[in-house]
Amino acid sequence: MTKPLNELSAAEAARRIEARELTAEALAAACFERIDERDYAVRAWAFIHAKQTLAEAREIDRMPRRSRLHGVPFGIKDIIDTENLPTEYGSPIYRGHRPRADAACVALLRRAGCLILGKTVSTEFANNHPPPTRNPHDPAHTPGGSSSGSAAAVADRMVPLALGTQTGGSVIRPAAYCGAFAIKPSFGSINRQGTKFVAESLDTIGIFSRSAEDLALALEVLSGRPVPDFASFTGKPRIGLCRTPRWQDADAATQANLEQAGRLLAKAGATVSDFELPAGSEALFDRHRTIMGFESARALAWEYENHPDQISTSLKPRLDESWQVTRADYDALRETARQCRRALADRMREVDFLLTPSAQSEAPRSHESTGDPVFNRAWTLFGVPCVTVPHGKGAHGLPLGVQLVGPFDGDSALLGWAHWAAGALGAGG
Amino acid sequence: MTKPLNELSAAEAARRIEARELTAEALAAACFERIDERDYAVRAWAFIHAKQTLAEAREIDRMPRRSRLHGVPFGIKDIIDTENLPTEYGSPIYRGHRPRADAACVALLRRAGCLILGKTVSTEFANNHPPPTRNPHDPAHTPGGSSSGSAAAVADRMVPLALGTQTGGSVIRPAAYCGAFAIKPSFGSINRQGTKFVAESLDTIGIFSRSAEDLALALEVLSGRPVPDFASFTGKPRIGLCRTPRWQDADAATQANLEQAGRLLAKAGATVSDFELPAGSEALFDRHRTIMGFESARALAWEYENHPDQISTSLKPRLDESWQVTRADYDALRETARQCRRALADRMREVDFLLTPSAQSEAPRSHESTGDPVFNRAWTLFGVPCVTVPHGKGAHGLPLGVQLVGPFDGDSALLGWAHWAAGALGAGG
Repeated sequence: MTKPLNELSAAEAARRIEARELTAEALAAACFERIDERDYAVRAWAFIHAKQTLAEAREIDRMPRRSRLHGVPFGIKDIIDTENLPTEYGSPIYRGHRPRADAACVALLRRAGCLILGKTVSTEFANNHPPPTRNPHDPAHTPGGSSSGSAAAVADRMVPLALGTQTGGSVIRPAAYCGAFAIKPSFGSINRQGTKFVAESLDTIGIFSRSAEDLALALEVLSGRPVPDFASFTGKPRIGLCRTPRWQDADAATQANLEQAGRLLAKAGATVSDFELPAGSEALFDRHRTIMGFESARALAWEYENHPDQISTSLKPRLDESWQVTRADYDALRETARQCRRALADRMREVDFLLTPSAQSEAPRSHESTGDPVFNRAWTLFGVPCVTVPHGKGAHGLPLGVQLVGPFDGDSALLGWAHWAAGALGAGG
Repeated sequence: MTKPLNELSAAEAARRIEARELTAEALAAACFERIDERDYAVRAWAFIHAKQTLAEAREIDRMPRRSRLHGVPFGIKDIIDTENLPTEYGSPIYRGHRPRADAACVALLRRAGCLILGKTVSTEFANNHPPPTRNPHDPAHTPGGSSSGSAAAVADRMVPLALGTQTGGSVIRPAAYCGAFAIKPSFGSINRQGTKFVAESLDTIGIFSRSAEDLALALEVLSGRPVPDFASFTGKPRIGLCRTPRWQDADAATQANLEQAGRLLAKAGATVSDFELPAGSEALFDRHRTIMGFESARALAWEYENHPDQISTSLKPRLDESWQVTRADYDALRETARQCRRALADRMREVDFLLTPSAQSEAPRSHESTGDPVFNRAWTLFGVPCVTVPHGKGAHGLPLGVQLVGPFDGDSALLGWAHWAAGALGAGG
């Protein structure tokens, strides 16, 4: 039996398009069919305009090949500007907003011959007010947030690749909840022009896919970081098993799953040893909100001053509180973060990557919460690259993930190891 | 004789407004009169809408006092979004563009009861294509760039305060050329939501004024950094006289002026000693374009792909070249910059601030160039705060400046010392 087109990996789709066995138009049409069939239940998409997009796909089919992802469709989180599709940042304040230009990341995709399939649901200003999106594995559960639509759409095989953003845990957590692969690259990897800020010192554009190879292909187009030679990542990696200072926040299934993943990878040849974060790192777990709050109050100052009544009842009080953070507290925590970054960089010389939970549990059975980013926030503050690989199931049978964390700017190698780990864990990849 | 209203410092204007001796409306009207009288020659303003703005001033006059700068007008560089005035980023691609929202920095000013007087001329995308703006001291000379209009408007007493941005030398250099005070604060001081990026790892919003005190008042509103207790900066600062690895690029007048400033400050009580930058810092002077190029090509990817014919003949070839910078070179220079930052931070513990040229000469007699940022680029890459204080004259009698550089996040103290130095140098302030 041949795989339905909407289930192809980006790598396989691009290969067939290059070989003229497939057109960008037919691939997009298969994605739109899947969306048509499923999105009434999943609600991953904020905007699609199939007719216009299929016309763009035909244009791409007429172009000379521009990149290794020529013709491949992407979902774009609706916190990222698109010239020819509305961009509402998940807020009624921006109803019907049409930006003048594409964000840099969208322009880079178009430059590479990729197709923008549509906009995926973002929570309100990429914060944590619950979105309409449902977990594709069970609609009673959250898909996570804030990149809810990108995670759900990729996991539900509506699109092979999608972009999201992470300030706390908004890429890795929803990917793990939905059973997708994702990367939050090193801070500064993907240009943020035209992306609405939550906290500019943390906001990082990330990628969702169904394999580590697809993440690498997309990261190359978006950041210039080369696709690793996957065949060379077959050795015996040194893995640091990092339970973090918040290990007790992980549920039993998550704890058991991480330790079992460590054993499986050891069996596959890795040296796995316990890894303690540098002293002082607890502050990055506990006080991330000092930085996020100080910055997000200012980033949303126009909205807060001019449209307070259109800010959700969950965000409004967070912003009220955020205005109380002092510059001195903010500067002090930034200095702590810089010290921790240096200490972590030193200590990470002993390992190839860390293995740590992607989230504290499977996706909660809730539409009131998008889950807790406790296992993501500190890594975002460290600025280091993080990849989540689907592995295992939670107590209700929903997907779990394990998170691989690499040294700063070591994104390509981390994806090489993620591909290896996914194979060793039986997650494809 | 009383000072004309348009010549008041922001501090004095705010004091009179608080005492109900002056209205925001009368102050704005005086600024508009000065603009009317002078801007045909200086061409500092991209957009003004006096009727609408005077109505806003009357609203501000009816409000309870919101900050220490209540009622004070600001010019806003036209690279920064404003909801109710066009924002064209100095490019015909954005002719007539009306952003949906104010940039965060504009929203913070309005929140503080400040008046947005109008948009000041930016060079095309804050790069270096020459603007229409003239140096107010001599129209045959450039005002510098890219914050050309903000520097010229403040120096020519059209407005007491203005915002600009610096990626290489776009705040400190034009301020020095026009005889204004300015601060490029520590990286991360003023929120950049709604500011068009050139290179996001460098772009820094800065402030122009006619005194160090006014810079401090504006920085407090914009960043939360407290106004220093100026009276306490009367001691005997330890000053590092930093000629930089590019000393030979400074003309004779600039070299003599800096050394004379050092002698004057020593006479006023300072301990002045020579200061060598850490080994390796030369790379930050020589290879800044590796970072700026890599990032600006991506930040302007939409414009480059969709409107290449509307990009200037000076910017287009720079962008063509910038696409050739590799990720590996970019990452390597960022790593060098991080090492240099740490080494500089260690070494700066020995001094209160550095004294270094603000520019290589007075404003060049040219409308083909905005001058050379050779004495600014490395400081932008270091991320440390820089203040220029007007001092001395060049060979053609145009203003020179001296640049004070402080430790990272030491902006408030640096402004305290700038106020002291301006007094000791006889520059007011």
